[in-house]
Amino acid sequence: MSEPRYKCIGTRPIRPDGVDKVTGRASFGADLSLPGMLHGRVLRSPHAHARIRSIEVEPALAVEGVKAVITAADLPDLASQAAQGAETQTDFRDLSRNVLARDKVLYHGHAVAAVAATSRTAAERALAAIRVDYEVLPAVLDLDSALAPGAPILHEDLRTRGLAGGGAPTNLAARIEIGRGDVEKGFAEADVVVEREFTTRMVHQGYIEPHAVVARTAEDGHSVVWCCTQGPFVVRAYCARILGMDLSRIRVIPSEIGGGFGGKTTVYLEPLAILLSRRTGRPVKMVMTREEVFRATGPTSGTRIRVKIGATAKGKLTAAAATLVYEAGAFKGSPVTAAAMTMFAPYRLEQVRIEGFDVVLNKPKVGAYRAPGSAMAAFAAESALDEVALRLGMDPIDFRLANAAREGTEAPYGPKFRRIGFVETLEAAKRHPHYSAPLGPGQGRGVACGFWFNVGLQSSAAVNLNEDGTAVVVSGSPDLSGTRISLAMMAAEELGIPIERVRAVVADTETIGYSDLSAGSRVTFATGMAVVEAARDVVRQLSERAAAIWRVDPREVRWEEGRALPPQGAAGGPEPLGIEELARDAARTGGPIVGRASLTARAPGPGFATHICDVSVDRETGRVSVVRYTAFQDVGRAIHPGYVEGQIQGGAAQGIGWALNEEYLWDSSGAVENPGFLDYRMPIASDLPMIDAQLIEVPSPTHPYGVRGVGETPNVPPLAAVANAVRAATGHRFTDLPLSPPRVLEALDSEG
Amino acid sequence: MSEPRYKCIGTRPIRPDGVDKVTGRASFGADLSLPGMLHGRVLRSPHAHARIRSIEVEPALAVEGVKAVITAADLPDLASQAAQGAETQTDFRDLSRNVLARDKVLYHGHAVAAVAATSRTAAERALAAIRVDYEVLPAVLDLDSALAPGAPILHEDLRTRGLAGGGAPTNLAARIEIGRGDVEKGFAEADVVVEREFTTRMVHQGYIEPHAVVARTAEDGHSVVWCCTQGPFVVRAYCARILGMDLSRIRVIPSEIGGGFGGKTTVYLEPLAILLSRRTGRPVKMVMTREEVFRATGPTSGTRIRVKIGATAKGKLTAAAATLVYEAGAFKGSPVTAAAMTMFAPYRLEQVRIEGFDVVLNKPKVGAYRAPGSAMAAFAAESALDEVALRLGMDPIDFRLANAAREGTEAPYGPKFRRIGFVETLEAAKRHPHYSAPLGPGQGRGVACGFWFNVGLQSSAAVNLNEDGTAVVVSGSPDLSGTRISLAMMAAEELGIPIERVRAVVADTETIGYSDLSAGSRVTFATGMAVVEAARDVVRQLSERAAAIWRVDPREVRWEEGRALPPQGAAGGPEPLGIEELARDAARTGGPIVGRASLTARAPGPGFATHICDVSVDRETGRVSVVRYTAFQDVGRAIHPGYVEGQIQGGAAQGIGWALNEEYLWDSSGAVENPGFLDYRMPIASDLPMIDAQLIEVPSPTHPYGVRGVGETPNVPPLAAVANAVRAATGHRFTDLPLSPPRVLEALDSEG
Repeated sequence: MSEPRYKCIGTRPIRPDGVDKVTGRASFGADLSLPGMLHGRVLRSPHAHARIRSIEVEPALAVEGVKAVITAADLPDLASQAAQGAETQTDFRDLSRNVLARDKVLYHGHAVAAVAATSRTAAERALAAIRVDYEVLPAVLDLDSALAPGAPILHEDLRTRGLAGGGAPTNLAARIEIGRGDVEKGFAEADVVVEREFTTRMVHQGYIEPHAVVARTAEDGHSVVWCCTQGPFVVRAYCARILGMDLSRIRVIPSEIGGGFGGKTTVYLEPLAILLSRRTGRPVKMVMTREEVFRATGPTSGTRIRVKIGATAKGKLTAAAATLVYEAGAFKGSPVTAAAMTMFAPYRLEQVRIEGFDVVLNKPKVGAYRAPGSAMAAFAAESALDEVALRLGMDPIDFRLANAAREGTEAPYGPKFRRIGFVETLEAAKRHPHYSAPLGPGQGRGVACGFWFNVGLQSSAAVNLNEDGTAVVVSGSPDLSGTRISLAMMAAEELGIPIERVRAVVADTETIGYSDLSAGSRVTFATGMAVVEAARDVVRQLSERAAAIWRVDPREVRWEEGRALPPQGAAGGPEPLGIEELARDAARTGGPIVGRASLTARAPGPGFATHICDVSVDRETGRVSVVRYTAFQDVGRAIHPGYVEGQIQGGAAQGIGWALNEEYLWDSSGAVENPGFLDYRMPIASDLPMIDAQLIEVPSPTHPYGVRGVGETPNVPPLAAVANAVRAATGHRFTDLPLSPPRVLEALDSEG
Repeated sequence: MSEPRYKCIGTRPIRPDGVDKVTGRASFGADLSLPGMLHGRVLRSPHAHARIRSIEVEPALAVEGVKAVITAADLPDLASQAAQGAETQTDFRDLSRNVLARDKVLYHGHAVAAVAATSRTAAERALAAIRVDYEVLPAVLDLDSALAPGAPILHEDLRTRGLAGGGAPTNLAARIEIGRGDVEKGFAEADVVVEREFTTRMVHQGYIEPHAVVARTAEDGHSVVWCCTQGPFVVRAYCARILGMDLSRIRVIPSEIGGGFGGKTTVYLEPLAILLSRRTGRPVKMVMTREEVFRATGPTSGTRIRVKIGATAKGKLTAAAATLVYEAGAFKGSPVTAAAMTMFAPYRLEQVRIEGFDVVLNKPKVGAYRAPGSAMAAFAAESALDEVALRLGMDPIDFRLANAAREGTEAPYGPKFRRIGFVETLEAAKRHPHYSAPLGPGQGRGVACGFWFNVGLQSSAAVNLNEDGTAVVVSGSPDLSGTRISLAMMAAEELGIPIERVRAVVADTETIGYSDLSAGSRVTFATGMAVVEAARDVVRQLSERAAAIWRVDPREVRWEEGRALPPQGAAGGPEPLGIEELARDAARTGGPIVGRASLTARAPGPGFATHICDVSVDRETGRVSVVRYTAFQDVGRAIHPGYVEGQIQGGAAQGIGWALNEEYLWDSSGAVENPGFLDYRMPIASDLPMIDAQLIEVPSPTHPYGVRGVGETPNVPPLAAVANAVRAATGHRFTDLPLSPPRVLEALDSEG
């Protein structure tokens, strides 16, 4: 098959927003100020679990400069919608109670009240003046305690979904199961069976920008909300539900976003800011401190995963089984289902069963984090696979190649894969110089793979042609990772004009059609499809204008290199009409030219990756250093290879941090002990080698350019890749993350 | 013909932006602040006419806090584009030189340099430190001096367009002529001929909000401009031309606008703010003082108009001729052409000739003002017609009825009128109780008529359907007068949903397709057409979704009252599908639903009005008070009658102010002596009676609901209506406006 020839796709133009971001010119959530603006602050629970007996707000209202104080009593009580909420992905009763605690606080940091005042200082004085009478309850802070008989119960009305019977109150919110075949039969056929238990801790996405919002409510009740979010339409929908408003009464304008990684897909401050601005008639700004981000926004689950894998002596997998227990935080809804679905997705397995448990406990409600749930599951699965290969004496890549999913393989969660590039990533890894490079003393090499679905969902786009033939691409997808330039490149390719003549912008909820979250690695794929369709709509109109000028059938007009070409006829026919002429004369030929598209993108091409990691372990300090790292990923088609590489580098870096150092530390009362970047140790540039991102392009059949989502997959393999490398370096199989120096040292010391 | 039945059109819902505007919540041009923002100020000429020998900016740069100083030397010199500019409506060479004087200053207040500094105070200190070496030249401050032989010449390269020969430098920028027939023959056939000369003074639109802008330029050179403007796309186009940028490098976001009336259709501060922000890398805010607005923005022309009208004894007009001399200010381009075209447009005239002259002189360049040029021409024409009717002893309405233009009448400027409602306004005026109400002592009643073309031009609109079935109407037309609610009402009518479920917003130049100025009374007409088309696009898509669900042909689906009705078939067929269900399920049926339309609206229905004015004249002080005022206007179809009435009331009030008190006063050096609302006397609420606006609805055949533009026509008749009333009260024909107390007193005293 001959490669399509592109002019713009696959090149590396400079990202227009880049310099502004690194020089501080870009406008983030906290950068907006409005005249008469008030400052809002949130009072947070000092207990991990307590009943709220009463809240006395009058003393706070008496503080000079304080204009309003709100509590859950000021929000509609969505209790009656619980049944309805359970049917949908988001339970708005829980969401509302996470935004402002009602009756009970469920974690240390849970929002209890919010104030708006003329200064931040006044607002903080007001917080100190609010008197909350708590009846402190015993808290559950780990999975075992939460599931123990007689455990303190977070939600008296919670019953386990997915379990027959089970009528008593519980902290087990759901049990799920997927699989096929007879795993016991599979294990019986195995020559080698490995069974292990793995644990990971709650970690945070660690975005640089704290949550920030400014809300202004007009006299007629219409609210404008500026905020940093991955999904302005979701903020609108959630605020509307929490506050009982029509969608048309809220406009959400997304700012630049200083990182999200899944953590900015829900609301925390936004409904409070709207309500405070409505109460006071003034704009209200709310910005979280770093401490609040750690204490009260959604990290990802701590987990306990038991995995069992069987294989024949020749290296064929015969069965896999796993039990996943995931922390949901204070309200139900961990990513355990996605974890179960992705865990063995890279492999052909006839016999597979995965059971998952969603457990509530007195920690912040977890949020999405880059390939939600999958990294921890892959840590378990890929560590166990490493162990199986070791026992079999097989090269870990050969072992995986022998079992790799291909086109037509049925995924453990059901559907058959279309064209995928997993095998290609394994083969590329195997032949890459990294894989055969010699290792130094104390070093080890690990391999691990990862899978992510990628999603499609709804996107809208418009392409507005300017009078000078330049174009603006409008979408409703906040740009987390350079998607504006990628969208602009697709439009430039379709229109046949230089990328410098195309600008891409993110509109707000009132000026573009509905668009789902910038999440699930969907923007370049799904919003990209909408942009391509909208650009083709522009080309169609341009061709029609040219056809009308030439008095020919529009179907006879071809569009090439930014020009309409007349039907090929006798010599002396009309000259081609360029986009600049057609744009300039648009007023006379029918008016402005605007292309648009809104769609639900289906069947996104899934993403597979294989990572090779070399570590050096310092046996004196227990410090693990990543010394070389190469990531191979099927990206479908790299629109802008530089930013695809950036996604892979960023995902790998986050996974390495998770593997090596990141974890929430809790004191006995359930307070976070390390709510800041000094103590919550994320990798910085000097901690890491250059991550070598190798792009494998196996075009997805469901996108006009073959794009696959790329953002999440690279966060999946690193936990296992690092742990497998440490095992290779030390001979010790670590099953509990992070591999922080004290933990590594202790394990090595105990082995003597 | 039976009246169409509407649910929403013709009702009076509350305007959502109203309360915010009167309570100060709305965000106008000066209300935005950005982090690190600098303040920009403009150095203005202290001379009406001078050569700039040199500008020394270094001392200003040395002032603490000053970050940049710019002069015309920092702008591209567009001199070479003069020939090209002359072909288009806007001469960008002139525009650039009005924004920053190059070589010469041409009026007192002409911008010479601009600075950006960390505070307004520092910026003003910097202005004081700039040393400009002027060679002061003699100035021309009135039409006679400007046209006198040997007059000081503003532009050495200016030659008169429209005059044969004429090779010498001149201040006469253009001569135009329109007409038909043989006016001398017409006058020869007349029984009565009236010939008079009328003069009016330069007046300002008097918008409450001064010009204001914030510009921010990114590292890649892309600029975002927030400003109060009638035309964000025009601001973008003008700034791009003045600064030599691609259109895609500038985004213009319009704020709420505190009045424009034509005065915010060009640029003054915007290119300076962009350039200063580019130089400094920081956002720059510039806000004019009221004095700057008066001294340096575009008012409308002072004029001298000679008019001659002949009629038979029976009251038939036989001929009309006029010579119009209009001040252009410092650069060519007065509204004399529009004046000539509109002057006799309400009347059937076989013999008509109008000659117009465009004269430059050392005053600010005039700008558009509500029905540009027409009010002064109508003052002359309608005063002269009043005089003819008086001489004939005919009732002034009967006289006008006898000569009124109707469907098929050929306008003096060419085309034949389609369906128009001028006669209907005259008939309504005649039978209205006002016209026969008794007058008190010292009172007089005047009648005058007016005409305005109204324009169509380009508009874009989108209708975004939200997931809950509410809708957002997006346009690129700033809302000067309640157009958002009118556009929302048209969408509500088409969608069949309550107006409370529809919100209309104004987008910016990057998020909506090209849209021409909010001017020419075009928004409800042309943008309204685009909204109707976009809403019908939504209905089409909704019907298609319903048809797909029902598996029927979409053409069989009817849309009624917000619901898709299934084909009428046997009993037991499917239930209708409401917009809420269809919107909620859109993700599953094909994605978000967005309607859009971009068009060039043609053949707008022109507007005609007849005004009746009663005045009381105080012979001791010369004070003229308007005691009753009724305006009859063919509005086509009033979408929101309340705001149509508001337009008529506002237009009449402005015309009354112009008639009675408004005028620029100049000292001998050419400085404005009254650059503030204390001394420039505009009418306030207590000066005026309630203006009774009578809506005559003769639907325009070129709009789906019959809308005609309504905003400008009401500003046309008042000058003459007031003057005719004063003549009736005093017996004195005033030919020189304004009718301010000293002038009236002097005239009455001189008559004894």
